[in-house]
Amino acid sequence: MNQSFEEGSVTSVQGYIAAGIACGIKKRKKDLALIFSNSPCTVAGTFTLNKVKAAPLLVTQEIVKQQTKVKAVLINSGNANACTGEEGHKDALEMQSYCAEKLGLQPIEVLIASTGVIGQRLPMDKLKTGIEQIVPALKHCGGKEAAEAIMTTDKTTKHLSLNIKLKHGSVNLGVISKGSGMIAPNMATMLGFITTDADIDSTTLHELLLPSVNASFNKISVDGETSTNDMVLLLANGASKIKIEKDTEDFQIFQTALENICIEMAKAIVSDGEGATRLVSINVKNAKNQKDADLVAKSIANSTLVKTAIYGADANWGRIISAAGHSGADFNPNDVTVSFDNLPVLQPNFNIVVNEDLASKVLSKQEFSINVDLGAGDAKTTWWTCDLTEEYVRINSDYRT
Amino acid sequence: MNQSFEEGSVTSVQGYIAAGIACGIKKRKKDLALIFSNSPCTVAGTFTLNKVKAAPLLVTQEIVKQQTKVKAVLINSGNANACTGEEGHKDALEMQSYCAEKLGLQPIEVLIASTGVIGQRLPMDKLKTGIEQIVPALKHCGGKEAAEAIMTTDKTTKHLSLNIKLKHGSVNLGVISKGSGMIAPNMATMLGFITTDADIDSTTLHELLLPSVNASFNKISVDGETSTNDMVLLLANGASKIKIEKDTEDFQIFQTALENICIEMAKAIVSDGEGATRLVSINVKNAKNQKDADLVAKSIANSTLVKTAIYGADANWGRIISAAGHSGADFNPNDVTVSFDNLPVLQPNFNIVVNEDLASKVLSKQEFSINVDLGAGDAKTTWWTCDLTEEYVRINSDYRT
Repeated sequence: MNQSFEEGSVTSVQGYIAAGIACGIKKRKKDLALIFSNSPCTVAGTFTLNKVKAAPLLVTQEIVKQQTKVKAVLINSGNANACTGEEGHKDALEMQSYCAEKLGLQPIEVLIASTGVIGQRLPMDKLKTGIEQIVPALKHCGGKEAAEAIMTTDKTTKHLSLNIKLKHGSVNLGVISKGSGMIAPNMATMLGFITTDADIDSTTLHELLLPSVNASFNKISVDGETSTNDMVLLLANGASKIKIEKDTEDFQIFQTALENICIEMAKAIVSDGEGATRLVSINVKNAKNQKDADLVAKSIANSTLVKTAIYGADANWGRIISAAGHSGADFNPNDVTVSFDNLPVLQPNFNIVVNEDLASKVLSKQEFSINVDLGAGDAKTTWWTCDLTEEYVRINSDYRT
Repeated sequence: MNQSFEEGSVTSVQGYIAAGIACGIKKRKKDLALIFSNSPCTVAGTFTLNKVKAAPLLVTQEIVKQQTKVKAVLINSGNANACTGEEGHKDALEMQSYCAEKLGLQPIEVLIASTGVIGQRLPMDKLKTGIEQIVPALKHCGGKEAAEAIMTTDKTTKHLSLNIKLKHGSVNLGVISKGSGMIAPNMATMLGFITTDADIDSTTLHELLLPSVNASFNKISVDGETSTNDMVLLLANGASKIKIEKDTEDFQIFQTALENICIEMAKAIVSDGEGATRLVSINVKNAKNQKDADLVAKSIANSTLVKTAIYGADANWGRIISAAGHSGADFNPNDVTVSFDNLPVLQPNFNIVVNEDLASKVLSKQEFSINVDLGAGDAKTTWWTCDLTEEYVRINSDYRT
């Protein structure tokens, strides 16, 4: 692609301002973010498939479903407001309406999201004081602070922007996201907020967002877990005055750009996985069909034995092929080829061609690919995973303390 | 039940002898085991569902399918003879026929199994020298040595026996097994070899074994992985002269005993999971149906976030309910109850009743239960899991070196 990412964020896009502050939900760090659009936005969203859904997610999902226009997204970190029952639902509604009031909006113009510990009530006093403080703090360059305020165990902020050349001018995409957890969407909530100044109706916006999320955030799961709070929102305020409609060349260009920005964010989340030291692309090709390709890639990406072998830079292709073997996909083990980057490891009929020293060098790189050719058809996919380290165990064995 | 386990093994059963020796596949430790029955045995077996199956497993599975009688089981550790192609298959057949020759048997009277590293050829010279040495080493009390010789990263040998009182006399069950891996059957192969002196035809033997394995070894998976080599075999030599037939009271008594001995072995495997410090029973009740009960229990047992929280003795019920929520089972999150042992943690409508200090005490015990009531029906199940520790990561990041 001929797009280059910039060190921007949601506020690199015309008509959006944002802020990130500390309101005391966390001990010291920033924990409240607000994104605001000067003009009303259409919105598309994808939400966790977990049966247990956090209160703010349900509130936001309902608005997105109604396809009404919105102007703000308020996000807190440090507390997920999940598994908090009726009271938690009331807290979510109050969080929304209090923010709307301070912004001079209707509650349904404000989307909300939360991430953090499950099962504890939101400290509403702190949150409301925070809302009072964050509204006047909104600014044109506030996107990175917002990115900081939505972090949980993330070590780095995640934000990007992209200028997209269309047939008659250009539009912008900006994003902030947070991951954490060994991988998103592994319970440790994955959140992504994307802004654009293109003019796109909400039906078209959904059609653009779904395949982009499926090709990115939905391919970085390690054990198929999805959090109670996972959410990706795409807002379009039309400030560029450039309209994108279905079945046009611009639609395709925008779709590709959106998918790419989502993939970059997804990879950033994996790279910053808890305790992770490696970012690994799992490329599966020549699967019998798309479902099989994803089953195999997911199974390898999720295997704790593969992930610990990666950590040890151990060319343990046996664990890779065994993970493929129990994925449920249909293939003949004798036809499988495995390589690490461009280094051949396994040829058909279990012809082992790996040079252990060279393989260990590839596996020691911060970023590399595991390539599996199933020789069973022509479907392919790419997933992303990270290694599983002692540090991951340390982080997650005392996350709450 | 009114059966008590004894510190026995496969050779605590009439008519079986065994041995375990070091033949040099591993650097120092015992790595070759042989179980021998004086009279021909019927045999039942369950085998990995992994698409990638080790050569010895395929050889043994074929014999079990033919329902012919066998007299010996030869097992090596240190090398799985998996993903070794045509050559590996020839090695497996040679391992079988060479052992048969030394025992004065036909090859199809000898079952074989392997466990250890994947993708490396068996050192046939060492193995054959080992076979020559192990045949004369067979002895009446050799079961525990055999248990030692099938270990890989196991820290303890796993063996038991049980005397079963039937209507007209008693029969015996003996078992040796090996686990390793965070959990069996997580690629790190799970093997179980069970002997009985009851007289049972092979069809009936299969009907006894399948539900026992399903209620035990198949409920300790953590991430649904199954190794290329997983296998449980049940041999019956009839030495007790007591016949067990279908649809009899004795069948029921024997079935219960077999299930119990399998559960004890399964729990021993989890307890000895790589780096594990806790053995946790996951009891799910009032699920909509059996499938849902197992989906929820498996999802909790497999969750790396639940397992790290257990390690940290962190009463993080949010991770438990979220794991239940993404399991695919149908239930209303508001109806869920959670307890640790007898300590209430969560009541319906997300009424959080946990005393964190008391909960942390329960979670610090070497053995405890997580009990989840879904309030959606009347199906129930029990799975077993262990915690996920830094030690697990250390072991698995350099298993081969």
